[in-house]
Amino acid sequence: MPNTSKSRFRVRYAETDQMGVVYYANYFIWMEVGRADFCRACGFNYRDMEAEDKAFIAVVEATCRYLAPARYDEEITVETQLARASRRVLEFTYVIRNNQNVLAEGKTVHVVTGPDAKSKSLSDRYFDLLQTAANSPGPQ
Amino acid sequence: MPNTSKSRFRVRYAETDQMGVVYYANYFIWMEVGRADFCRACGFNYRDMEAEDKAFIAVVEATCRYLAPARYDEEITVETQLARASRRVLEFTYVIRNNQNVLAEGKTVHVVTGPDAKSKSLSDRYFDLLQTAANSPGPQ
Amino acid sequence: MPNTSKSRFRVRYAETDQMGVVYYANYFIWMEVGRADFCRACGFNYRDMEAEDKAFIAVVEATCRYLAPARYDEEITVETQLARASRRVLEFTYVIRNNQNVLAEGKTVHVVTGPDAKSKSLSDRYFDLLQTAANSPGPQ
Amino acid sequence: MPNTSKSRFRVRYAETDQMGVVYYANYFIWMEVGRADFCRACGFNYRDMEAEDKAFIAVVEATCRYLAPARYDEEITVETQLARASRRVLEFTYVIRNNQNVLAEGKTVHVVTGPDAKSKSLSDRYFDLLQTAANSPGPQ
Repeated sequence: MPNTSKSRFRVRYAETDQMGVVYYANYFIWMEVGRADFCRACGFNYRDMEAEDKAFIAVVEATCRYLAPARYDEEITVETQLARASRRVLEFTYVIRNNQNVLAEGKTVHVVTGPDAKSKSLSDRYFDLLQTAANSPGPQ
Repeated sequence: MPNTSKSRFRVRYAETDQMGVVYYANYFIWMEVGRADFCRACGFNYRDMEAEDKAFIAVVEATCRYLAPARYDEEITVETQLARASRRVLEFTYVIRNNQNVLAEGKTVHVVTGPDAKSKSLSDRYFDLLQTAANSPGPQ
Repeated sequence: MPNTSKSRFRVRYAETDQMGVVYYANYFIWMEVGRADFCRACGFNYRDMEAEDKAFIAVVEATCRYLAPARYDEEITVETQLARASRRVLEFTYVIRNNQNVLAEGKTVHVVTGPDAKSKSLSDRYFDLLQTAANSPGPQ
Repeated sequence: MPNTSKSRFRVRYAETDQMGVVYYANYFIWMEVGRADFCRACGFNYRDMEAEDKAFIAVVEATCRYLAPARYDEEITVETQLARASRRVLEFTYVIRNNQNVLAEGKTVHVVTGPDAKSKSLSDRYFDLLQTAANSPGPQ
C-alpha cells in the first residue's frame, strides 16, 4: 500500500497561455488527476465512491506555490500524498515535476459531503483504505 | 422578441495559448454563453429549463470556422441566432466578432433530452418561446 | 483612485462539473479577471504593460478558501484588492460573491518578470499607478 | 510509418459539467492531444516544429459529431488520421472512443503559418514526414 502515488502525463497546448508557459489554474487540475490516481493506488475508484456511497470530497482550501514554469509537451509527474485523513476531512499534498525540476508544490483540504453538499462521514470501506495509505511508511 | 441575441465579454488570459491568441476550443464555450443569453432574450433561463422541466439540450454537432484570431483583453461580441427549432431538435448559428472584424462563425445542433440522456420533446412553454424567436423578422 | 475593483460576470456551463457546482480551479481564472479589471481601474491595461514594458506578473503563490459553492448562471462579483505593492512583488486579495453570500476568498502573490522569466522591476509609470491604488483609503 | 496514431488518457473531473458528462468543447482539446501524438508517431515533436521552423498549424475549421457521452474516469482513445497533407494545408480526422463505443468523430483543417500569423509552407523535413504518413496503407 503506497503512501504516495505518481501520475504522469504531457502538458497540453490548451494548458499554455500567451506567456508561453502553463496557465496557473491548470496546476489545480493536475492535482485532481493526482487525487484520482491516489485513490486508484489505494484500491478504489473515486468515481465509484461518488456513485455508490454518495460521498463527495469537496474542496475547502487549495494552495499552490510555483517554483518554475511548465512548458508545452513536457512530461509532468504529480506525486500525491495523503497528509491527513479523518472520516470528515482529508488533506492532500502534491509535488509537481518535469523531468528535471520541481515545478510546484500544492496542498488541498477536503470535507466529505453528500450530494446535498452537507458534511458527512466516510464509510468504513473507504476510510480504512485511505487511512492505511496515510499511515504507510512511504517510498524510502 | 429578437431573433438574434448579443453577448459581450472580454477575452480572459486563461483563454489564450502560447501562439498568443485564443485557443480554438474556447470559441465553443463562447457559443454556450451565446445560447444562454439567447434563452434569456427569449424570456427564460436555460438553468430553469433544466431544473424545472428536466429538459437538457445535448449537443450532437458543433462546427466553427476561424477567420481571424482573437486576442487577450479584446471585447468580444457573440451574435446568436436560432436557425431551426422543432420540439426535439434545435440549431443555433453564431457570429463572433471583436470590435473590428468577424473572427469566427459557428453552428451547433442539439437534441432535447431528459436527465437519462434519452430524447424527449420540449414542453409547450419553452417551445413556444423559442419558436416565436426563430420566426421573428430579425434586426434589419 | 480605488483600492478595490469589482468584476461582474455570470457562471458559464463550462465552469461547472458533475458535482453540479463550479469546479474549484476556475476560481483562479476569476481572480485573473479580477486582476485585469483592477489594472483597468488603476488607469492601464495589463495587456499594454506586457506589450509595451515587456513586464509580466508571474504567479508564485495562489490560495483559495471555498466557503459556499457557485452555481451555473449565477451572477458573480469579484472584489480585488492590491494588498501589497513593491517594484518586484505584488500581492492581491479577492472576495468572490454571488448575490447573497461570500463564496470564496483568495490571495495571489506575483513577481514582476521580463519575457525571459527573469525577475525585473516595474517601470515608474505602472508602479506609481499601482502604489497609489494600494494606498487609497478604500470604499468606506 | 503509421497513417493513424492512438492517444490514451482518462477523463478528468475538470472536463465534466453539471449534466454529468464531458463538456462538448473538451473534445477539441482531445483532438489536439491526438495531433501531438500523431506528429510524434511520424517522428517529430510539434513543439520542435514551432520552435525550430517557426511553423505553426493554425486551425481554420473544426467540427465534432457527438454520438454518445464520455464520463468521468473513463479511458478514452483518440485515433488520429492525417486525411490530407499539402505544404500549406493539413486536414486531420479523429475517432474518439471509450472502451466500448465510438463517442465522437471530429475533423480539423489547418493552415501553416509563421509567428506573424501569415500563411507559409512547411519545410521539406516536416512535409516529407507528414506526407509519408498520410500515404501509408493504414493499420489493416
